[in-house]
Amino acid sequence: MKIAAFLVSRRVSEFSFTEDAARRLVERLPGATVVVCGTEKAFLKELADADVALVWKFQQAWFDLAPKLKVVSTPAAGRDYFRIAPPAHVTMLYGAFHGAIMGETAAALVLGAARGVIQNAAAMRGARGGWPQRKFTGRLRTVRGAHVVILGFGAIGHHAARLLKPFGCRITGVRRNPAGDRPAGFDKGDRVVALAELDAALPTADHLLCILPSGPETDRLLDRRRLALLPPTAFVYNLGRGNAIDEKALAGALAKGKLAGAFLDVFAEEPLAADSPLRKAPNACLYPHVSAIAPDYMLHYVDELAGRLGSASRAF
Amino acid sequence: MKIAAFLVSRRVSEFSFTEDAARRLVERLPGATVVVCGTEKAFLKELADADVALVWKFQQAWFDLAPKLKVVSTPAAGRDYFRIAPPAHVTMLYGAFHGAIMGETAAALVLGAARGVIQNAAAMRGARGGWPQRKFTGRLRTVRGAHVVILGFGAIGHHAARLLKPFGCRITGVRRNPAGDRPAGFDKGDRVVALAELDAALPTADHLLCILPSGPETDRLLDRRRLALLPPTAFVYNLGRGNAIDEKALAGALAKGKLAGAFLDVFAEEPLAADSPLRKAPNACLYPHVSAIAPDYMLHYVDELAGRLGSASRAF
Repeated sequence: MKIAAFLVSRRVSEFSFTEDAARRLVERLPGATVVVCGTEKAFLKELADADVALVWKFQQAWFDLAPKLKVVSTPAAGRDYFRIAPPAHVTMLYGAFHGAIMGETAAALVLGAARGVIQNAAAMRGARGGWPQRKFTGRLRTVRGAHVVILGFGAIGHHAARLLKPFGCRITGVRRNPAGDRPAGFDKGDRVVALAELDAALPTADHLLCILPSGPETDRLLDRRRLALLPPTAFVYNLGRGNAIDEKALAGALAKGKLAGAFLDVFAEEPLAADSPLRKAPNACLYPHVSAIAPDYMLHYVDELAGRLGSASRAF
Repeated sequence: MKIAAFLVSRRVSEFSFTEDAARRLVERLPGATVVVCGTEKAFLKELADADVALVWKFQQAWFDLAPKLKVVSTPAAGRDYFRIAPPAHVTMLYGAFHGAIMGETAAALVLGAARGVIQNAAAMRGARGGWPQRKFTGRLRTVRGAHVVILGFGAIGHHAARLLKPFGCRITGVRRNPAGDRPAGFDKGDRVVALAELDAALPTADHLLCILPSGPETDRLLDRRRLALLPPTAFVYNLGRGNAIDEKALAGALAKGKLAGAFLDVFAEEPLAADSPLRKAPNACLYPHVSAIAPDYMLHYVDELAGRLGSASRAF
């Protein structure tokens, strides 16, 4: 089995496939050959006899260069990374290992927002920082007793719920098909509900954690009307895809004090435009799509991939 | 039983005793009378026939005004709040209810530091915020697999450990007397050790959470030498008392990149001086002693106090 890896990120070193990762993959898949490609040109050459391609992007025309190709795999979880229609003999594999990492980010944001330590991280910087206790009074909450609504209750949402539940919050998971989903650790106040019940959950939400995939069915799911159903004490988080939130409506709600804060890692367009109203919205903390970065990102990917390719290896 | 409450905080409304809190205390202690005092003058008048005083401060001379006084109680956990020697017939009661609240703050800081969401909360603010992924790459960690050293392993430390353990970290609790302390949820990598073993734990610490009480025995416990034992990837937190850390040495270590960051809620002198080197130290996030603020702070205090006074009520 020949595996051609073309996973290069100029901005985030954790998202590049290293020789270390290649060695680990060979260890897990004895007999496999892994070629690490640093450029598109080198990759397209290797594609000629590759069985498996590991990529962040793939173009339709590349299939014609790859007669032996059986699997295209990406660490990305989102189906939006590829705008291609693979031939019938090619399987697409998307990463599903992010839950443990992103669950930590979700918990970090929910806890940090409730305890005021993110919004006020720079409050005491510099000689004029003073002793701003008044910025905290009346605003700090506990996660214990809070209602956390997780919109998009897949693998990442389940990890977030597992990590937040020991804090004593109540959780409502919202997903397209809630049937049979009853996470361990849920108690009688916790629920998994269908999208039709989202509107009913919003008015009591203290934290609305959005972890939806992109697609026409999630476009502006959190529109102006739904954002207005949240109480002014609610925090909104987005770790899924930016298309799910009406950003202009969100910035407006923050400016009018109709929400307590927003913590966004993804945006409708990335990189976020310099003139986005979110950049100056009060109580908005913005991050450049980094919630999955971790030192062992690629190792998690390799381990997951090896398991999948190993169990499919009779096809090679 | 007459209870005179003089708990007024101008800066933090959660730290003021309200009529609501008084009603709850009477509910818990039928037959008790609770007088809420807004000024020192009013309080000193009520002291004349009070059995119990609820206060943030108390002066030695006030005991002479209070012939019936049997209990002086404060919500504060720290023994440093009073510099008084009470007569033999007066019991001092300090709050021990903070653990659940401050455990959340501790977890929020550890998670937020590891995932980079506190330090970079403002990175994308304004039109020139850009898309600063490079601020995150190479710096984000997971709490899973991290070594968390909790220095001062009392009630708050135990709550922090209980909340952090499900993230898959390894915990070393350090306390004066570790004998018999084996928290539920600890597994074979976790330990509770004596202060003599602190130095051995520091070189592998990813997170050093300081939750020590003040006193001569904790003065600068984290001095220049011990701070230098930490790896440059370590985060330092202080939620206990500020005397425990050599602030100048800490600011210096941050400036030289010998520590990854510091998150401090308490300081050797409070309010923190405008010219403290911590105010401009890189990767230092400072907070004005707010880690225990919560909407239900006084209700927790009242419930704990009622239990203690109730069980002691045969003395009245």
